[in-house]
Amino acid sequence: MIKVGVIGGAGYTAGELLRILVGHPETDVTFVHSTSNAGNPIHSIHKDLIGDIEGDFTDQLKLDEVDVIFICSGHGHSRTFLESHEVPASLKVVDLSNEFRLKEDADGFVYGLPELNLEAIKGATKIANPGCFATAIQLAILPLAAKGQLTEDVHVNAITGSTGAGQNPSKTSHFSWRNNNISIYKAFSHQHLGEINQSIQQLQNGYAGDVKFLPVRGNFTKGIFASVYTQCTLSEEEVIAAYKDFYKDAAFVYVLDEAPDMKMVVNTNKCLINVQKHGDTVLVQSCIDNLVKGASGQAVQNMNLMFGLDQKTGLQLKSVGF
Amino acid sequence: MIKVGVIGGAGYTAGELLRILVGHPETDVTFVHSTSNAGNPIHSIHKDLIGDIEGDFTDQLKLDEVDVIFICSGHGHSRTFLESHEVPASLKVVDLSNEFRLKEDADGFVYGLPELNLEAIKGATKIANPGCFATAIQLAILPLAAKGQLTEDVHVNAITGSTGAGQNPSKTSHFSWRNNNISIYKAFSHQHLGEINQSIQQLQNGYAGDVKFLPVRGNFTKGIFASVYTQCTLSEEEVIAAYKDFYKDAAFVYVLDEAPDMKMVVNTNKCLINVQKHGDTVLVQSCIDNLVKGASGQAVQNMNLMFGLDQKTGLQLKSVGF
Amino acid sequence: MIKVGVIGGAGYTAGELLRILVGHPETDVTFVHSTSNAGNPIHSIHKDLIGDIEGDFTDQLKLDEVDVIFICSGHGHSRTFLESHEVPASLKVVDLSNEFRLKEDADGFVYGLPELNLEAIKGATKIANPGCFATAIQLAILPLAAKGQLTEDVHVNAITGSTGAGQNPSKTSHFSWRNNNISIYKAFSHQHLGEINQSIQQLQNGYAGDVKFLPVRGNFTKGIFASVYTQCTLSEEEVIAAYKDFYKDAAFVYVLDEAPDMKMVVNTNKCLINVQKHGDTVLVQSCIDNLVKGASGQAVQNMNLMFGLDQKTGLQLKSVGF
Amino acid sequence: MIKVGVIGGAGYTAGELLRILVGHPETDVTFVHSTSNAGNPIHSIHKDLIGDIEGDFTDQLKLDEVDVIFICSGHGHSRTFLESHEVPASLKVVDLSNEFRLKEDADGFVYGLPELNLEAIKGATKIANPGCFATAIQLAILPLAAKGQLTEDVHVNAITGSTGAGQNPSKTSHFSWRNNNISIYKAFSHQHLGEINQSIQQLQNGYAGDVKFLPVRGNFTKGIFASVYTQCTLSEEEVIAAYKDFYKDAAFVYVLDEAPDMKMVVNTNKCLINVQKHGDTVLVQSCIDNLVKGASGQAVQNMNLMFGLDQKTGLQLKSVGF
Repeated sequence: MIKVGVIGGAGYTAGELLRILVGHPETDVTFVHSTSNAGNPIHSIHKDLIGDIEGDFTDQLKLDEVDVIFICSGHGHSRTFLESHEVPASLKVVDLSNEFRLKEDADGFVYGLPELNLEAIKGATKIANPGCFATAIQLAILPLAAKGQLTEDVHVNAITGSTGAGQNPSKTSHFSWRNNNISIYKAFSHQHLGEINQSIQQLQNGYAGDVKFLPVRGNFTKGIFASVYTQCTLSEEEVIAAYKDFYKDAAFVYVLDEAPDMKMVVNTNKCLINVQKHGDTVLVQSCIDNLVKGASGQAVQNMNLMFGLDQKTGLQLKSVGF
Repeated sequence: MIKVGVIGGAGYTAGELLRILVGHPETDVTFVHSTSNAGNPIHSIHKDLIGDIEGDFTDQLKLDEVDVIFICSGHGHSRTFLESHEVPASLKVVDLSNEFRLKEDADGFVYGLPELNLEAIKGATKIANPGCFATAIQLAILPLAAKGQLTEDVHVNAITGSTGAGQNPSKTSHFSWRNNNISIYKAFSHQHLGEINQSIQQLQNGYAGDVKFLPVRGNFTKGIFASVYTQCTLSEEEVIAAYKDFYKDAAFVYVLDEAPDMKMVVNTNKCLINVQKHGDTVLVQSCIDNLVKGASGQAVQNMNLMFGLDQKTGLQLKSVGF
Repeated sequence: MIKVGVIGGAGYTAGELLRILVGHPETDVTFVHSTSNAGNPIHSIHKDLIGDIEGDFTDQLKLDEVDVIFICSGHGHSRTFLESHEVPASLKVVDLSNEFRLKEDADGFVYGLPELNLEAIKGATKIANPGCFATAIQLAILPLAAKGQLTEDVHVNAITGSTGAGQNPSKTSHFSWRNNNISIYKAFSHQHLGEINQSIQQLQNGYAGDVKFLPVRGNFTKGIFASVYTQCTLSEEEVIAAYKDFYKDAAFVYVLDEAPDMKMVVNTNKCLINVQKHGDTVLVQSCIDNLVKGASGQAVQNMNLMFGLDQKTGLQLKSVGF
Repeated sequence: MIKVGVIGGAGYTAGELLRILVGHPETDVTFVHSTSNAGNPIHSIHKDLIGDIEGDFTDQLKLDEVDVIFICSGHGHSRTFLESHEVPASLKVVDLSNEFRLKEDADGFVYGLPELNLEAIKGATKIANPGCFATAIQLAILPLAAKGQLTEDVHVNAITGSTGAGQNPSKTSHFSWRNNNISIYKAFSHQHLGEINQSIQQLQNGYAGDVKFLPVRGNFTKGIFASVYTQCTLSEEEVIAAYKDFYKDAAFVYVLDEAPDMKMVVNTNKCLINVQKHGDTVLVQSCIDNLVKGASGQAVQNMNLMFGLDQKTGLQLKSVGF
C-alpha cells in the first residue's frame, strides 16, 4: 500500500483528493495536514466523507512515514513549504499549485499532464500538477501541435464552475451574485496561458501564433467546457484521425463522434473531445471536471504512474449523471 | 412629489427599494445614505441601475429635506439611528428592520402589513415593515384567524431564496455550497414567529396552539414558498370563501383556484394563495418575492398608504416570468 | 390609446409582450389570438399575469379594430398568416419571426433594430423584429462597422438562456439535462448570421471577413451574454469613444467602464456594453435579456417609434436584480 | 461473477444502475434490454458511460443466461413482463417499480428496504425495491416505530430533484419552468404513503396516526431532503440513542450530530439522519440521492444481500461533493 500524506487538507482540492483516495485500492491516507483544523475530524470539514474516513487533521508532519505527499495548500505556499521542511529525497511529491509548472521554475518537477509527458511522469519523483483550464485547453490543442498543424491564432472560450475559485468567499462566489449570471474575467491574460504555451512549444517548437483565451464564470459548481478553434489545412477525416491517434493510449480521453455535454464528465477523470471542420476552421470541444481531471483526479493519475500502477486505479469514478 | 431618503443604501433591500422607486411616478429620491460608500455613484453598488439613477451615495443626512425615510440598515441599527439623529416629528419613517415590529417594542410604529392593518397604516407616521417569512406565512394564516378557526397547531414549511440572507458572504451563501443543495435552519425557532403570533392574537385572541415553522434554505435567489396546514372544520367551499372575502380589497393578494408556482411572483409585489381541504386538514400555499412583497415592495406599499396614494402606485411590476 | 392585437398569443414571446403591455400607459390589448387556447383566460397560460390582464384568448381576428398587431406565432407562420388574412393597409405590424429580416425577403418590412435604423422604423408600417442573438451581437459589432474598422474575422461566443428555445419540450430543454450543463449547437452556422452580416454590410459595405459565431446553451432561463473580439487599429480611448458616440442617443444601450454581469439586464430592455483593447485586439462584451431587448421589449420599442412615442414608454422595467 | 440482465434499459434508473454496475467488482452485465433502442450502443443513450461499457441494447431476452434481472421499465410494466415471459424459478429479480411493494400485491416479492428487512432480503429471490421518497421518509420514521413511540400524526415535507420524475418531457420537467421555481404536488396523497404506512405497521402494529406528507418539486436534479416531525416523550438523548441503535449495523445510514446538507449524499448510497428534540417535538432530517439510495443503488444493495456479498460491494461511490 502506498502511504499518503496530504498537505493543506482543508481546501476544495484536498477534499476531492480524499474523496478519491478513500476508494483507491492501493493507498492508505497516513495523515491529513491542516494547521487551522488540527485536532478536528477530517469529516468535520469534508462532511460528505462521513463513514468514509476516520481520523483528525493534524499539524504534525511525518514526512518520513509516507511514500508520497500531495500539496494542496494553494498557490504561493508550496515552494515555501518544501524549503522549510526536511523532505526525504525519496519522497514523491505531487504539487497542485502553479509554482513548478513552468520550466524556468521547475526545480526538477515534471509537468504532470500524462497525455503529454507519460514516460517522464513514470520516472519522476516530483510532479507539478496542471491547472484546470490548462488541462481542458491543452487536451483540445496538443494533437494539432503534435502534427505541426498550428499556424494561426487559436481562439479559446472556456467556462468554469464556481469550485474553480476555491472556498474563500468573495463577491463572485456569492450565490446571490453567481446564480443566473455569466461574466468574463482575466480576458486574454489568464495565468494558465504560460503552461499551455509551454506545452505547445514542446510539441511544435516555433509556433508563433497566439492563444486567445476568454475565461468565463459559469453558474454551476463543477465542470469546464472549452471551445477551441483555429485554421487547419487537414481534412475533417485527417484531423479526427490525428486526435484519435494522439489519444490512442490515453486512459481518460475520449474522442466522440458528436458534441459533448459538459455534465457527461462531472465527477469523473474523463476528458471528452469532439473535433469538427467548418470550412478551413477546426473546432474542438473539450470538457472535464475541474476538480477531478482538472486537479485531484489528475494528481492521483500521476501518482499511479509514478508508482507503476495502472493509470485508472482508483479512478473509475461514477459519473453524477445529472 | 414625495421626497425620499434612504438610510443604509448599499444593501440588498435598499437596492430593491431603489429599483422600485426609480419607476415610481410620485417619488423623488433625494438622498441615499451610506457611510461606507459615500461619494461613489449609487450604480457602482447597485450596478443594474445604470441609466436609471444618477447621483452618489452620501454621508450627509438631510432629514428636513425629505418627506419619508426608509431605514434599510439591517437589524440592530434602526433604533440607534433614530435616537442619535434629530428626526423631524412630521417625517414619515418606514423601518425594514425587526426592531419595532412587536408591540412591546413598537414606540409608536404601526406594524405594516396592509392586509391586516390597512387603516392604521393610512394614519401612521412610522411603519415597522414586516419580515419576509412573516409576510408569506401570515397571509396564509390570517384569514383563518379572522374567522376564529384556528384550534390546533399550525404546521409551516417555508423555503427562501439566498437574498433573504443579505449580501454578507458566509458559508451558506457560497455558491459552491448552496447550488444543488437544501438545508434547514432555526427549526421551530425563527425570529419571525414573534410577529406571526402577535398578528394571530390580534385577530383571534386566545389562540393557544403552536405555529411550528421549519425554515428551509433554497438553491435560488429570490422568492419564498410557504406551505401551511392545520385542522379546520369549515368545508373547502367555506374556507375558500373566507379567504376570498378576507382579501377582497387587498391590492396584491390573489386566491388562486390551483396550486401556485413560486416563480409566478418573482419580481412582483404579489402574494399568491391557494386553499385546499384534505379531509379535516386545510392546506394553504403562499408565495411571494422575499425582497419585494417580503421587504422593499411592501415598504413602498406602506408609503403609498401613508401618503394617500393608491396602494399599487409604482408597484405594477413586470414579473420576471421565468 | 394604441389598440393592440397579439397573434400567436400562447408562446413565450407573447407572454413577455403581454407582461410589458399591461404596464404600458399608451396601449390597450384588444385581443390575444390563439387557436388552441381560444376561450380560455389569458392568465390560464401566462399564469403570472393573474390580476394584470382580464379576458380570454380568442380565435377571432378583428384586424380592423386594432392599430397594431404583434405576430408571435413562431418562425414559418408569419408570411402565411399575412397572406391568408385581409390586413388593412394602415395596420401596423411587428413580426417577431425571422421571415422578413433579410432584404431579399423583406416585402416592405423594415429591420427593427432601433440603434441601426431609427428613422426608417419611425416611418415604417411593418417591422421585422431582430433575433435575440442577432441583437446582442450586432450591438457589440456595429459601432466598429460604422467607423469602417472591421478588417479581420470577428470572433463571437454567446450563451443563451433556455427561454430562447421556446416552450416546446425537447431533450435540451429538459431540466434534468440542462441543469449543471453547458453545450454548443449550430457551430458557425446559426441562422442569425444572415441578419448580422446584412447589418454589417449596411454600415461597412464590402467587409470581407467572417463572423465566426459559437452559440452556447446556458443553464439559466433568461439572458444572453456575448463576447466579441477582432483586430482593431484604434486605441482603446478611440474605440471607446466610437462606441459612446454611436450610442449617444440610444435609449437602452449603455457603454460601461467595467465588464458587465449578465444578470444586470435580466427583465429589462437594456443592452450593456463594455469595450477593452488587449494589444491589437478589441474585446466587446454585450448582454441583454433574450426575451425583452432580444424579442418582446424591442418589439414594443419599435411600436413606440412607429407611433411617435418616446422609445422608453412602458419599457422602464424593474430589473430582477438577482 | 454475477451475470446481470437489465430490463427497460434506456431510462434514468437503468442508466444509474449501469453507472454503478460497471464499477461493481462481482458483476457482469450480460444484456441490457430495450425494445426501442435495440441495436444502438448503450452509451448512445447513457452518454456519460462512454469508455465504461461496450455493447448494444438488445431486444433479445436471455433470461436463462443471467443470475439476476433488474426491471427498470417504469410503473405498470413489471407484472406484465413477468407474466408474459418464462422466468426461470432460480432467477433473482429486483423490480424497481411500485407493483409488488404492498403485501397484498407482493406475489412473493420481499420489500427491499435493508434497514427493515435485512434477513428476509438475504433469503429472497424477488425484491420489490422501495420508492425514493419512501426510502428517505421511512429511514426517518422507522426507529421511532421500532420503539413504539409513534402516537400522534407525523408531519413530512420532502423535496425532490427533477430526475425523480423520469426522462419523459412534461411541463414540470421543462428547464424554463423548473429553474428558480418551487411547487407542491399530490399533497397528502403521494403514492408512496402506502409502503410507508405498511412498514410503520410492521414495526408498530396498530399505530393509528396519520403520515401527512407534502411532496415538493425542487429546482435541482438529484437528491431528496425530508423533514419529519411528530410528538415524542423520549428525551433528546434517548431518541438519538434509539436512532443510533436502530442503525448500528446499517451499511449506509449515518446519524449525524448536526443538520445535514442534502448535497452531502448526492451520488452516494448514503442516507444521512439528524435527530433533534424541540420541546415535545422530535424533528428528524433525512437525505438521500433519489436515484442511488432511492432507486438503483438500493437495488444493487439488495442484489448484494441476495448473493451473500457485503452490502457495500460496488457501492462505495465518490460523492459529487458540490
